[in-house]
Parts: sequence; C-alpha cells; structure tokens
Amino acid sequence: MGKYMTVKVGINGYGTVGKRVADAISLQDDMEIVGVAKRSPTYGAEMAVEKGYPFYAASDKYLDEFDRKDIPVEGMLEDLLDEAEIIIDGTPKKSGYKPMYEKAGVKAIWQGGEDHEMTGLSFNSMANFDEALGADYLRVVSCNTTGLLRTLYPIHRDIGLERCTAVMIRRGADPWDTSRGPINSINPVLNIPSHHGPDVQSVVPGINIQTTAVKVPTTIMHLHSVTVDLKKDVDTDEILRTWDETPRIKFFNESMGVDSTAKVMEWARDRSNDRADLNEIAVWNDAVKVEDGVLYYYQAIHQESDIVPENIDAIRAMTELEEDKMKSIRKTNEGMGIE
Amino acid sequence: MGKYMTVKVGINGYGTVGKRVADAISLQDDMEIVGVAKRSPTYGAEMAVEKGYPFYAASDKYLDEFDRKDIPVEGMLEDLLDEAEIIIDGTPKKSGYKPMYEKAGVKAIWQGGEDHEMTGLSFNSMANFDEALGADYLRVVSCNTTGLLRTLYPIHRDIGLERCTAVMIRRGADPWDTSRGPINSINPVLNIPSHHGPDVQSVVPGINIQTTAVKVPTTIMHLHSVTVDLKKDVDTDEILRTWDETPRIKFFNESMGVDSTAKVMEWARDRSNDRADLNEIAVWNDAVKVEDGVLYYYQAIHQESDIVPENIDAIRAMTELEEDKMKSIRKTNEGMGIE
Amino acid sequence: MGKYMTVKVGINGYGTVGKRVADAISLQDDMEIVGVAKRSPTYGAEMAVEKGYPFYAASDKYLDEFDRKDIPVEGMLEDLLDEAEIIIDGTPKKSGYKPMYEKAGVKAIWQGGEDHEMTGLSFNSMANFDEALGADYLRVVSCNTTGLLRTLYPIHRDIGLERCTAVMIRRGADPWDTSRGPINSINPVLNIPSHHGPDVQSVVPGINIQTTAVKVPTTIMHLHSVTVDLKKDVDTDEILRTWDETPRIKFFNESMGVDSTAKVMEWARDRSNDRADLNEIAVWNDAVKVEDGVLYYYQAIHQESDIVPENIDAIRAMTELEEDKMKSIRKTNEGMGIE
Amino acid sequence: MGKYMTVKVGINGYGTVGKRVADAISLQDDMEIVGVAKRSPTYGAEMAVEKGYPFYAASDKYLDEFDRKDIPVEGMLEDLLDEAEIIIDGTPKKSGYKPMYEKAGVKAIWQGGEDHEMTGLSFNSMANFDEALGADYLRVVSCNTTGLLRTLYPIHRDIGLERCTAVMIRRGADPWDTSRGPINSINPVLNIPSHHGPDVQSVVPGINIQTTAVKVPTTIMHLHSVTVDLKKDVDTDEILRTWDETPRIKFFNESMGVDSTAKVMEWARDRSNDRADLNEIAVWNDAVKVEDGVLYYYQAIHQESDIVPENIDAIRAMTELEEDKMKSIRKTNEGMGIE
Repeated sequence: MGKYMTVKVGINGYGTVGKRVADAISLQDDMEIVGVAKRSPTYGAEMAVEKGYPFYAASDKYLDEFDRKDIPVEGMLEDLLDEAEIIIDGTPKKSGYKPMYEKAGVKAIWQGGEDHEMTGLSFNSMANFDEALGADYLRVVSCNTTGLLRTLYPIHRDIGLERCTAVMIRRGADPWDTSRGPINSINPVLNIPSHHGPDVQSVVPGINIQTTAVKVPTTIMHLHSVTVDLKKDVDTDEILRTWDETPRIKFFNESMGVDSTAKVMEWARDRSNDRADLNEIAVWNDAVKVEDGVLYYYQAIHQESDIVPENIDAIRAMTELEEDKMKSIRKTNEGMGIE
Repeated sequence: MGKYMTVKVGINGYGTVGKRVADAISLQDDMEIVGVAKRSPTYGAEMAVEKGYPFYAASDKYLDEFDRKDIPVEGMLEDLLDEAEIIIDGTPKKSGYKPMYEKAGVKAIWQGGEDHEMTGLSFNSMANFDEALGADYLRVVSCNTTGLLRTLYPIHRDIGLERCTAVMIRRGADPWDTSRGPINSINPVLNIPSHHGPDVQSVVPGINIQTTAVKVPTTIMHLHSVTVDLKKDVDTDEILRTWDETPRIKFFNESMGVDSTAKVMEWARDRSNDRADLNEIAVWNDAVKVEDGVLYYYQAIHQESDIVPENIDAIRAMTELEEDKMKSIRKTNEGMGIE
Repeated sequence: MGKYMTVKVGINGYGTVGKRVADAISLQDDMEIVGVAKRSPTYGAEMAVEKGYPFYAASDKYLDEFDRKDIPVEGMLEDLLDEAEIIIDGTPKKSGYKPMYEKAGVKAIWQGGEDHEMTGLSFNSMANFDEALGADYLRVVSCNTTGLLRTLYPIHRDIGLERCTAVMIRRGADPWDTSRGPINSINPVLNIPSHHGPDVQSVVPGINIQTTAVKVPTTIMHLHSVTVDLKKDVDTDEILRTWDETPRIKFFNESMGVDSTAKVMEWARDRSNDRADLNEIAVWNDAVKVEDGVLYYYQAIHQESDIVPENIDAIRAMTELEEDKMKSIRKTNEGMGIE
Repeated sequence: MGKYMTVKVGINGYGTVGKRVADAISLQDDMEIVGVAKRSPTYGAEMAVEKGYPFYAASDKYLDEFDRKDIPVEGMLEDLLDEAEIIIDGTPKKSGYKPMYEKAGVKAIWQGGEDHEMTGLSFNSMANFDEALGADYLRVVSCNTTGLLRTLYPIHRDIGLERCTAVMIRRGADPWDTSRGPINSINPVLNIPSHHGPDVQSVVPGINIQTTAVKVPTTIMHLHSVTVDLKKDVDTDEILRTWDETPRIKFFNESMGVDSTAKVMEWARDRSNDRADLNEIAVWNDAVKVEDGVLYYYQAIHQESDIVPENIDAIRAMTELEEDKMKSIRKTNEGMGIE
C-alpha cells in the first residue's frame, strides 16, 4: 500500500471501545474513519457527528429519533461495510456480525468479549504482531489479558517464566453503567482458575499461568497481584530494566504520591490524557520484588483504554500498512501521545 | 490596563484548585502564570514544570527532594509574592497566609474553605461581579454554594424567590483522597440547617434559603434536590428559558442517555474536557417541574471544577482588566472551551 | 375469635420480607405459621425447615433439587392455600397471585411493590388500622412510605401539616443483591415528584406531600431529609414529645455516638436485634429543628424490616383477632422486642 | 480449678473486640465478666450496663458525662485490675497498658494490632493451644492471620505445605468507622510481601508463606485467594475432608445461593447469629481445586468476629481451666453456638 494511501476503517458499535478506537484512528496519518455505526440515539451520536465522523445507523429502530435530533444519517450499517476495508467491532459480545462482514468482504477486529475460536487469532501487539500480518479476522484480547501479556511476555521472552499465578481484583462495572454492582461485597469468580489464564495462552501458548479473580465496588481500574516463578534467578533491577524497555508500561510509586488506583487515575487526569484514560499498564516499581527466584508485583489496568493502541497496531498488521512490529508500536504511540 | 499588558498571577497551593486555575489562566490572553508554589514533592511538581510554570517551594522542608528529582526551584514562596500582582490561594483551609500577602502587597483570592469574614467579600461571577471591581481580597465561594447561586440567582433576579430548600447529597471524598470515607453509610450533617444557606446569603443577602446535607460513598459530583417557592407563578418553560440564557448551566436529560452523575461524568470525558472536568452546573431539564407555584429541580456539581471560571472572572474584576461582567464571563468561557 | 385459637398464616415467597414476617409471627401467641412456600432451593429452604416451618414448593421446577438436599416438601403452594386463613405475599412485585388466593378463599397481604389499586386498601398501623378490620386484601406500603407515615401521621393528627417535602436518599440494592449498583454514582429519580408522595396519600389522603429521590451506593438504610410547613407554630420540644409518644420511632444522636446510618446499623447489631434489623424509624433528635413554623428533620429507614410489625398488625386487623389499634401495636412490639 | 470456680475476666476497651469477647464469655460456664472498662460515653456504656456488666471508667475525662447519662461507674480501670485474674485488652493498638497489668499482677490477652514481640507468644487455638498453657501474656493474632491459620495449619500438619501465596482483598474500614475510605479505589499494600506472612510464622514457624494485600471499598469481610504447593499430591476431596474435620471452618457454595461475601453475611443474619457475626472462616467448597499438586481456594474472613472464640480458648489455656485443646475448642463452640 502506497505512502499516500490511508486505510479506510469503519466502526461498528460506538460505545466504550468504539469511541476510543475512533479517536485513536483519527490521530494516525495512515488510516481514516469512513464511518461510525451506532444503534441508539444517545448523546454519542451527536458527538460523533461533531467530531466529523460520518454517521451510520446500525438498526432502523431509531431512524425517526435521529431525524428528530438532527443527526445526519449517511446510511445503514450495510452501507458502511461497503465503504470500509476493515471494521472495528465494538458491539456487545456475541452480537454475531461475522457473517455480515464476510458477505461484505471486509476485514474485522473484535474485542476480548468474543471467544478465541471465532477468529482463531488472538492478538497482542508485542507478543504476536507478526501472526496478524495480512489476517482477515482477529480479536484483541480483553483489557485484563492485555495487561498480563504486557508485563509477562517480555519476562517470558528474556528471562523465562516457569509458572505464574495472578489474582485479579476487578472493577465491578463500567463507570457509566450505574445499574451494576456489587455494593459492599467482594464477589469471587468461583470457576477456579478463571478464564484469563487460557486467554493469555491463546496469544502465547507457552506461558504457564493460573488466574483467579474477584469483583469489587469500584470503577475504571482493575488491579493484579502477580506471582511468577522465574526460570533464571535475576534480581529486581533486571526485571525493572526489562519493563522499562517495553512499550506501554508506566511506572508509578509512593515517592510520586501514587499509592492507589485512584491516584493513578488522578495522574492520568493531570496529564490531560483524553477522557482521563491510561493506555499504559501501571506498575508500582517500588513494589516489585524478587525473592528466592520468585517475582512479586502489582499492576493496574485501565479497563477501557489499554486495548486501544492494540487495535491500531492490529489494523496495521492486518492491512500490511506496516510489517515491522516496533515501527507500528512507535507510530501508534506517537500519534496517541503515549510516552 | 492596556491591551498588551497581562496580569501576573501566582498560584499558592498546587492541589485540586490550584492546578486547575493555573491551567485556566494559561488559556486566557490577558493574564499569565508567573509561578506556582507547592509544598510537597509529589508528581504535581514535575508536571507543573513540564507545563512551563516557574516552580517555587512553599516550604524548605523538601528542597533536597526537589533537587533529587531535578525539579528546578526558582525560589521560595516569598519570592513568588514579589513577582505576582495577585495570588490564587489554593492551600488547605485556614492555612493563614493573609498576613504574608498583606506584607507583600499582593491581591489574593481564597476558596470556599475560608470564612466570609476573612475577606468580607464572597464572590460569584453572575451574582456580584461588580462588587469585586478593584477589590484586594475576596473568596470564591465553595463548589456547592457556587452551584446554588448559578441556578438560584437568575430566578431571584427575574422571577423572585420566596423561599428555597436545598438538600445536598455530597460526595464523600476527593477522587484522589483514598483515606476518607464513608463506605456503606449515609452521613447526615446534623447541624440543621447546614452552612450552605448562610454561604449563599454571603453573596446575595436577599435569598431566603435553608439547606441540609448528607455525605455518601461517591467521588467527584455532588447532587442537589432543590425546592423553590416562586414569587410569580410562571411555568416550567420560563424557568428553562431563564437558565438557558444563563452562562455555565448545562442541560442533561434521559433522552441523551444521561440519568445519573456517572453519566454526566462520562459525557465530560467524551467531550474531551480537560481532566474530564465540568465547569458548568448540570441540570436535568426533563426533571424541572413547577407545580402550584413551587419549582422542583435536581442539579449536579462537579466538586473540583465549577469554581475555576469564577476564579478567572475574579482576577479580572479585582485587577479591573475588564469591568463588564458579561464580557468577562464570555471571555473566560471562550478561553476555557465552555459553551 | 377465642383466646385459644390462633390464626393460621401461610407465607408465599421466603425472601427479604417473607422470612422476616415468618419469624415475627412465630414470636406472637395469637397466630402461627402453617407453611412457607418458596421457589428456589437456596439455603433459605433448609433454614425454614430447621426453624420448624412446614415447607411447600411454590413451583415444581426444583422438586428434584429439594429432594436431593433432603428438604421435606409438604406439598405445593396450592396445598398451603388450603391450610391457611391468610397469606403473606412476599413474592416479587407483580407476581400476580391474586386470582389464586381468590379461588382458594384466603385473605392476603401484599407489600409496597404492588399498586394501591390491586387491593384498594393501603395500610399503616398507626394511620389506618381501623380501615383494615375484616378486610380480605390489603397492601402494607413500602419501607419508605411506612417511614414517612410513622413520623408525619402524628404531626398531621396533632399539630397539622400544611405541606411537606421529603428528599429520599435511597440505598442502591438489597444487601445480598450483588448484581445491582450504582457504583460511584448518584442516580436521581427523574420523575418529579416521585411516587412516594401519592403513596403516602393512598393511606392518608389529606397529607400534602411532594417527594424526590436519589439512589446511592449503599445497602440496608434509606435516609430522608424532610421539610414540613406546620399548621400551628409549635416548638421543637413539642415535635419531639409527639414522636416520643408514638410507637416505632427511635431517637439517635451524636451524644450517643451515632451520626450516620452505619452507626445506627451498628447499634442494632449491638442490641442483638435479630438479623441486625431495626423495626423502628431512626430519627436524629438532635437534628430536629423548627424555625419560622417550618420543621426540618432527618430520619433513616431500615429497608428490610420496618414493615414487618405492620404486617403483624394487618393480620390482626383483617382477621379481627384484635380490634383495638394500640393493643395490637403493643402486642406486636412486645412479641418482637420493640421498645 | 474446681467445677464451681469461674475465672474472673476483665475487659479493657469495649469496642469491636471487647464487646464481642465480653458476650462470648457470658455464654461460657467456667468464666465470668467482673467488669468492663471504657473511655468514652457513647451508647456502648449504657448497653454494657444493661447487659449486667459492672462498668469501670478507663479515664476520668468523661466521669461527668457518665454521671449525666446515669451510667453507674463501679470504679476506675485500676480497680477493675484488682478484681480480675485476666484482662482482655481490646484497646486501640499500641495503647501501652502492659506495665499497668504487670503492676497489678493480672494476666492479659492482646489482639492482632500488637507486635509479636510484646508478649513473645502469638496464639491460634488449633495451631498452638498447648504453648499457651499457664502463660501470663499472649496476643491472639489478627483476623486475617487467624483465617490463614485455620485453613493452612491442618494442611501443614496432615499433608504438608511446600509453599503458600495468599492475596488478601481487605475491607476498607470497620462498618461503623464512616470516616475511613477508600471510595472508588483499590489500594495495594506496597510493602511486598505484607506483614501477614511473618505473622502466620509467629504462630507456626515452619509455614513457608508470602502474602500481598489490597484494600477495597467494602466493610465487614476480607477475602483471600490462596495458592498452596502441596508436599503430597492429594486430590480435592482429601483437602475438603481435612477441613470438614477442622473446627471453625464453614463451607459455602453456589448451590446454596452464596457466591459473594454479601451473601455470606446474609447467611449469618438469617442464622440469627448475634450481631450477624460469623466466627467461622467461610470457604467456598465448590471453588477448591487441586491441579498438578497445587491447591487453589478462596476464603472469607469476618473481620470483627473470627478471633472471638480464640480469645475464649486463650483464657482457658492461660488459666489452665482446661488443658486439652479439643475439649476447650468444643466447649467454646458449644457456648457460642458454633456448629
């Protein structure tokens, strides 16, 4: 694909993921939004139009309402599929759009809510960019799995990971989803181990990992307490050096005044991050410890936004806009303002 | 003061208020930050420097630490007072800096944590801009009192307000303040009525208002349920028209998909507001009702940011940069991206 | 009905209300549980059996499961209706059992989730016990409406209530209902005024009341901030005296160390109340204030248990076990350990 | 000690621990409360008197206030020390009463807030009852450490424990402590590993355990996600059998309808446990899994009450009322209604 060509991307589903990936695409110079499809006439429709994204209706149920609100509808979802080369599917899990994409002959990227089996290819930028080159369909793994891969993959690659246990303390609900709890409860996921271990292995089969998870009454960030038996007996500094050289990991510590997920979120606000998001994984570098060949660390995951840059890299790999992993990652980061 | 002159503003205290007012000032063309003074070496110091604000130490306790973190310290707070014409005091309440400002001969603006008596002048842009012209000291009233004045003052002025009762459901803690609760409790303010009524009257003595308040386990937004006995029997539309013409009031409603404070916050994120703030007061226009001469409405207050534009207007009034209230408000709003 | 006869009561629905009313009935000497009907095989079924309540299946869906768990099933709901003179309906709202009760010829008591229209008689012990004498069907109004009536009715009767506004800060979910939120949000009820005003009037038509409501991230207790324009200008002491003479109102205050709903709940635990319930309405007597003929007060409502004694009184009135209101209330209270 | 003698116990500090241990003592026939000492005149003082506990003032600061509230004060703390053979110290951590107890020649039991070093003997009923026989001073370890020992000790003893990692999701505040957070935050304990590992080892030196911990916005229950490398390759059933035979472990599962800490708490309420407490450790038996010699399980800890029966056993051991561990445990359990 030539230098002056841009990939035409359509967004199906303009919720938590769709709206973020749309904005990230518009910050890249080698891809463009040809349209956004949305079902319901909530304020996002108006905002999409204000941002200059051509607006398509994902169903005909609310066409009158879009009309009443002066939302210019360019067409239906089917029309958008004709315009796009690749679709970001940000619809609720199991929405079942794959046959429609196949029929229209567009590539598509799903998110972590879907099973690995639907596409046969689960994606993380650092771990398996090369496998995605030219692919038609893939899914970007969930925010938690992406977070685990960001920190575990470089250790797996450089040091060796004998075995890993991760306990995931998960936020209870999306920040806007005020119908969901829990309130004053800790809810364990009683299927032990949880699905996140196999999910990591769907990207990197060789990682020996078991995970458990609980849900708590917070929004926005998950926190992981991770234990890793290392294959080589390295010291804490070597772990920190490995992560320091890895993109999309950001260190926080008490000396900065950051000792909680709330303070990580405040940092993201103070840095003027768009939507107060944090695309990086937050690692407390003063709480990383290697003892007797075992690594302990905490990391926090911004549930809505860590997977956004992975979607951008996936577009590049699938359309072969860029075949070099590190070049794509750097380009994505520069566009999005990730350090 | 001439067109090419800018007022030199110093910030004492770079926390919730200080950092926001600093950024708002840097968006105005008639004022500039000559320095920011901060006590502790948390990450804010580094961010202030990155934003290009000259950095001053508010105490000598952490000078070594600033040095270790490569924060270039321009001087001490006293030095900043020499540079500035006017100080935004964003220090914790009752910090007691007034004598130091008097000695240095600088004007100063305090926030709602201070008593009215300290300055004798309590400020809200719409309600009493003119009283602040040329003043040396004033306090911008608290976020809740500012919120009450934004919606009540225009009704008081245009329609007449016989009597008002406001019940304030207050967020429990600042979003970063993870030491404070409550958890799973509703805490009533047992001094009835609460101090917010007298606080409104410190700006507009004629408003007959009683307030009660409770604290709940949330962050970022307060919500008020307000009942007003009107002097004239107008209909709901006239109330909405009055507010529609008033700056810094923003309507939300269920048809937009916004039926909670969390969704107001999400809207502010989606609008790419800096820090995901909301300088306007959120009023649910589909839940405004006049019945038998009594007005009922809900409003939500972004606790950290509604008072920021009032600080900017106060600077203009006190330094007589601009003597026309509406011109100042419009200029502030344009700079800050308030509709 | 003779001294040695007891009313035979069946419980349909053994959840939040059903299990509590069952235990309260077993503490009275003039009524008895002839059976409890439950749908699902969760632990409550076993506990009901351990308490000696004959167990009936409310559907045949889980008969195998009851069998596997060794729960002795006495029969189906229809069989229970044959045994009982009166049914406490604690099923989810709009479950639609009325035709079945009519066919079986049993009296029935519903809860606040049902509309007034279904029975035409809405009940509160103090306010309209006499209207329930001999009735076949009634509903005990909701926990919030019961709470409002407990404190407003005696003022309406003795002093006169010109007009009332109540703002209700509601708990987000039942304590066990960990699927419901909100988390970090305040959700206003956008239908202004809320349904609680008309609900109060369904019991005492003469009370002029408007209500608004918000939902917050807590469990167990609601809190009301109430404003009342009195018909007579009485002082605070007269209000307190009136409530002191009214059953099922309990005073709390800061001097006791109780300044939040959490501390009211702790008091109920320390008093060894069963299930840590509080059947009384909690009023902060140090935060009751009359100013210029207007009464301000806060009250807290134990959402699960304030309506339990009303159900007992309703049984007595409907079956004419006791025709004197105060005698029934006293008998209920003594049995239940209410002061 | 003869059958008709009872040990005379004094309670110093009538808060979360003190009030519970006092009630537990009054349910045993071989010990009695000779007095309760409390500092502040909150409602607990009145309740202690109502329960028939002689009341002593822990300081002279509020003597007037006790008088005003008609609390009969039997004497000062020093007087109580003269009456008692053994003191339960339920005062805030580091209150420093040891010299006073030494001077008075009374035995004393502290709680988990104190360091091991103060007494040199850290106690858990199952793990080291025998070491406490005749001891003058000991501390009952914290609720979390007690919980870990309850499930880990029998595995250590019967099966062998190669290594253990426990991640502790801790409730943010005591249920009555409405000043403490966090709200909408997960706060990791940045000292890795946390102090709970060494705390377990202060009772059973041989257990190889590392712990990490986070704080979340809930009250009442902690939850642990535990990973254990076993010395012998046993199956899940053997683990369950071991725990089934161990006192003070209670199984919960989804089939009972209990899949969260909130539902465990609801179960404790439904069982009419005093204060809705749960003295047992809650283990989800359907989420216990052994895979490749590694055991995974979740347990939940009632932060206020699991240590209460350990205090009773400690009294028996220290005073040699009973020298047989299992007899003491059974006697304590019977008195307290623990299955």
